Amino acid sequence: MNLPHVVIIGGGFGGLTAARALRRLPVRVTLIDRANHHLFQPLLYQVATAMLMPGQIAAPIRQVLQRHRRAQVVLGDVTGVEAGRRQVIYHAGESGQQRLDYDYLIVATGVRHSYFGRGDFEPFAPGLKTLGDATHVRNRILSAFEAAERETDVAKRRALLTFVVVGGGPTGVELAGAIAELARVAMKEDFRRIDTRLTRILLVEAGPRILPSFSEDLAAAATGRLRAMGVDVACGSAVEEIDDGGVRVGGVAVAGRTVLWAAGVEGSPAAAWLGAPRDRAGRVQVRYDLSVPDRPEIFVIGDVAAFEQDGRQLPGVAQVALQMGRHAARVIEARLLNDAPPPPFSYRDTGNLAVVGRNYAVLERGRLRLSGYPAWAVWSMIHILFLALPNMRASVFLQWVWSYVTGQLGSRLIVEQKFSSSSGRSSRSGG
Amino acid sequence: MNLPHVVIIGGGFGGLTAARALRRLPVRVTLIDRANHHLFQPLLYQVATAMLMPGQIAAPIRQVLQRHRRAQVVLGDVTGVEAGRRQVIYHAGESGQQRLDYDYLIVATGVRHSYFGRGDFEPFAPGLKTLGDATHVRNRILSAFEAAERETDVAKRRALLTFVVVGGGPTGVELAGAIAELARVAMKEDFRRIDTRLTRILLVEAGPRILPSFSEDLAAAATGRLRAMGVDVACGSAVEEIDDGGVRVGGVAVAGRTVLWAAGVEGSPAAAWLGAPRDRAGRVQVRYDLSVPDRPEIFVIGDVAAFEQDGRQLPGVAQVALQMGRHAARVIEARLLNDAPPPPFSYRDTGNLAVVGRNYAVLERGRLRLSGYPAWAVWSMIHILFLALPNMRASVFLQWVWSYVTGQLGSRLIVEQKFSSSSGRSSRSGG
Repeated sequence: MNLPHVVIIGGGFGGLTAARALRRLPVRVTLIDRANHHLFQPLLYQVATAMLMPGQIAAPIRQVLQRHRRAQVVLGDVTGVEAGRRQVIYHAGESGQQRLDYDYLIVATGVRHSYFGRGDFEPFAPGLKTLGDATHVRNRILSAFEAAERETDVAKRRALLTFVVVGGGPTGVELAGAIAELARVAMKEDFRRIDTRLTRILLVEAGPRILPSFSEDLAAAATGRLRAMGVDVACGSAVEEIDDGGVRVGGVAVAGRTVLWAAGVEGSPAAAWLGAPRDRAGRVQVRYDLSVPDRPEIFVIGDVAAFEQDGRQLPGVAQVALQMGRHAARVIEARLLNDAPPPPFSYRDTGNLAVVGRNYAVLERGRLRLSGYPAWAVWSMIHILFLALPNMRASVFLQWVWSYVTGQLGSRLIVEQKFSSSSGRSSRSGG
Repeated sequence: MNLPHVVIIGGGFGGLTAARALRRLPVRVTLIDRANHHLFQPLLYQVATAMLMPGQIAAPIRQVLQRHRRAQVVLGDVTGVEAGRRQVIYHAGESGQQRLDYDYLIVATGVRHSYFGRGDFEPFAPGLKTLGDATHVRNRILSAFEAAERETDVAKRRALLTFVVVGGGPTGVELAGAIAELARVAMKEDFRRIDTRLTRILLVEAGPRILPSFSEDLAAAATGRLRAMGVDVACGSAVEEIDDGGVRVGGVAVAGRTVLWAAGVEGSPAAAWLGAPRDRAGRVQVRYDLSVPDRPEIFVIGDVAAFEQDGRQLPGVAQVALQMGRHAARVIEARLLNDAPPPPFSYRDTGNLAVVGRNYAVLERGRLRLSGYPAWAVWSMIHILFLALPNMRASVFLQWVWSYVTGQLGSRLIVEQKFSSSSGRSSRSGG
């Protein structure tokens, strides 16, 4: 077949939506990702806090694209793009370096944590982007309670029962709320020497308030709810130091053995591969049709794209990636069929949601503002509907109902994997 | 409280049953395990072959013993027993070496793989005992298909699509059957360059036939079923060599990139700690009441105990461990209450079951012999009923129904975890 070849880098919301949208066109599609699964990132914090199992929020990309006969899936780690030769360079396990020719390229590689120049924080303050990250954080959180139960020294025990979440965006708020639920509800009967209800959770935000993407009254409602759950919310102070003993915030040292990073992201190295103009966070500044300046055959979508609308950068949320994926496919379609190009990309805001513990969320859509139980019900419904496969939807729904009724968690495992050897080397998490 | 203290090492079937059976007695119980979860080992092969998620077959030990107020759970790695001082020595993360006094000790540490003196096989032929093992094997199997899809060299591709299972006991038979299902049913639509139905699966057994613990006609039925599923069953030849290119069996080299070990087990180091008499497989030879000679306060139960009945060693199955756990608790009860000791331990055989792929099992109980669908239905029911927590039962049941109807698997993830750092160090899988 000599159909035009569209290569998509990344099987997240943007890449997968683009692949699906290209389904009816006379093109071959190759989707390449480091991971074999599409990850439903909005629920990743629930894996990290032992509510859900990894398999409940991840769908094998091959399975999602099973019926799309002209789509290939490649498990590989992209290391560069040679735009002049229209080639993607990737590394694939023992096969080593490979090249893939393209006619159109869609870059949907997402973002990674940014420690704002303090990469030395990373080993002490893991972030949350991949399933590997989430199980690592889950191990850390659960192990801290185990160590506290064994510890006889009061100060050390206190440090083990102190959790610091850095960053007051939705991820930070959701993590802090979920740890509070874990400690106060799900595990309260399980230990004999410690009282998990005395767990201290500190949410640190450098800006003047949490949830800056929400209106002030909703942010205030979320702050009140977090405080009622026993979370200390500290705004206006940046974290100055992090080490294995804790953090220093606004000149004050806090002894805490588990520190989680939810403070910032930066574009993947994709931007550097393309030599395209980037913003300060390393995201690619795309044109009105999501293509890269002077490279009309290369599109950048999702979190790694910087796109300004009404004077504001579009946020790094699933909806933006979904709409961008559809738009890029539409632009390619118009070019292939010699149709008039679609109007410039314009994000249709579908609203903003964040969960604060159990049964409480904040929701903002246009002028509509909701907080509390109704927002949480909407949040639950939307998140279940957007899971990629029907068995995931059923499984997460039943898990939530079960946990709601019993107060028990879904997956409280501490599992450390072995190092992979020989043939396992080709697999990598992330992407 | 100065109640007598019973320490149980290991939270498997034996240890957990003993802990539960001691519930009504005036004793303190401490259960110590390297893992934070009880693992339902009979279904571990389903995690390794992507049918179930790890969380579906593992229950947090704390949660299982939540209402047993006099039971403590300690996450720790036992390194020795000082029987003279009645102390267990264990390592617990950063707390380092700890000691625990006991009045009664129940050793239920299980077994580990034995490579019969060929430890150099291990990196090339992983076995299946812990959740970490299972996700590692799952990564290996799924990655082999991914690498085959990328591979252009025909011979290399063939080797990537060749799986060798060493050992024809129930675990080996179940693994081989499950890989055949994976290749022939669940993934048959997912690849574009390879036909997964051409996957070669070789089951190697050194003895004259597979399933030696079953009667000959059932073993023959299972062999026939495996062959019908495309599994090559090779009996009477031992594996002579294993490396990253494949195996040598009976002088013949077989190129296969994925080799799995299900050939043998040996007792945990527990036997050596106790200085007790051991059999050739390193299991502790226990007395009629499951205690260790000259140490009436130490009991050894489950797979790590060697117990002969009617001239045969009891097999390493869950039912033996369960019955031994209850018996040890009964002996302790009689001693505490100064009652007459219970009659010597005697295993009541509840039967023997092995699954061969989908919808087919062999079952033997006394003179009853069943093969095919009815045996499989019994197997499914029993395995669901014995899961430790009700949510596991519901979840595995629904997963199986779903997979039965759709042919899809439950959890086809390739996830490599990060190395653990600092506070994660205390957690270990296994036990």
